Amino acid sequence: MSEQILEKLIKKVSRLPGLGPRSSRRVVLHLLKNKEKYLLPLINDLSQVADNIKSCNECGNLDQDDVCEICKNPLRKNNLICVVETVADLWALERTQVYEGKYHILGGVLSAIDGINPEQLNINSLESRLKKQNCTEVIIAISATLDGQTTAHYIADRLNTFNIKITRLAHGVPIGGELDFLDDGTIAQALKARNEM
Amino acid sequence: MSEQILEKLIKKVSRLPGLGPRSSRRVVLHLLKNKEKYLLPLINDLSQVADNIKSCNECGNLDQDDVCEICKNPLRKNNLICVVETVADLWALERTQVYEGKYHILGGVLSAIDGINPEQLNINSLESRLKKQNCTEVIIAISATLDGQTTAHYIADRLNTFNIKITRLAHGVPIGGELDFLDDGTIAQALKARNEM
Repeated sequence: MSEQILEKLIKKVSRLPGLGPRSSRRVVLHLLKNKEKYLLPLINDLSQVADNIKSCNECGNLDQDDVCEICKNPLRKNNLICVVETVADLWALERTQVYEGKYHILGGVLSAIDGINPEQLNINSLESRLKKQNCTEVIIAISATLDGQTTAHYIADRLNTFNIKITRLAHGVPIGGELDFLDDGTIAQALKARNEM
Repeated sequence: MSEQILEKLIKKVSRLPGLGPRSSRRVVLHLLKNKEKYLLPLINDLSQVADNIKSCNECGNLDQDDVCEICKNPLRKNNLICVVETVADLWALERTQVYEGKYHILGGVLSAIDGINPEQLNINSLESRLKKQNCTEVIIAISATLDGQTTAHYIADRLNTFNIKITRLAHGVPIGGELDFLDDGTIAQALKARNEM
């Protein structure tokens, strides 16, 4: 009986991304080792997040309010929207602390294999934002994968009716990256887009 | 404010064994992606475990009752006690399905560096079990590390006053292990303990 609750928890934890049966057992034992210090605070934090975090009506970011901190922030430029796949990508861009505009979260990329079509992505809501918001540039910051690039081109096509500059992130050598370890496509792209020093 | 709850949760998850900031963000976003399917059931299972799982008074195993399923099981030999470091080791032995005796969980190994002395391990409770229980063999199944072996020798010494057979796990080549990748100590041990075919 007891094994059932524990086993059930271990199975559930093992299905989280990046975890497996072995690491799940380790995590659960660690939590049980000091219930007051680890397990109860974690339950409390998870419950708080479950009760309070929702999707921003404007951009799709996760926040406590219906309109997120970034959308509400008057210091952030309203005429600049950066289109990203997921909240994780938004967080990655925020960590750089260089972007001053707003975001729009697609919720994924088009994929024939996974059956993701344009209706399942937040493209309609992007268009209605562009209609009411005085936006001058949309930055498409989608992964440089095949599906990502298909999606980027599809969005660029759809936004063609608006009189807006559409840009994408630069491709090139990552900072700290060694040429020797880079794929040919990236090197070719970096060479084509070379800058004067 | 919202970032505070989310950030707090991500920080807490990132401190779990085997996780870091990046995998923690992934886990938390995965949980938030489908609250009803992932986050709420996980909170429920964690709370159930927090409320119901306790340490067995007899052996130190984790269970719903004060005396665990293994200690209660009349089919398991009472005269055989296997001493292990942690509940994870007990689970590892149970998965083999070959051991039919009881267990005793030490709760760690002696360590001069971490300041773990014999009083902090469940050695006294092992001795009192041996006094009341009619035990004929104690198997010491502790890691083959320096601290582990020190602990094994210390326990063997302490149990010398009882008229009990004290054994330890065999060292040797792991099943499926290639000699080429094994350390010299293991190969030497396996050679010394060779068996006739």
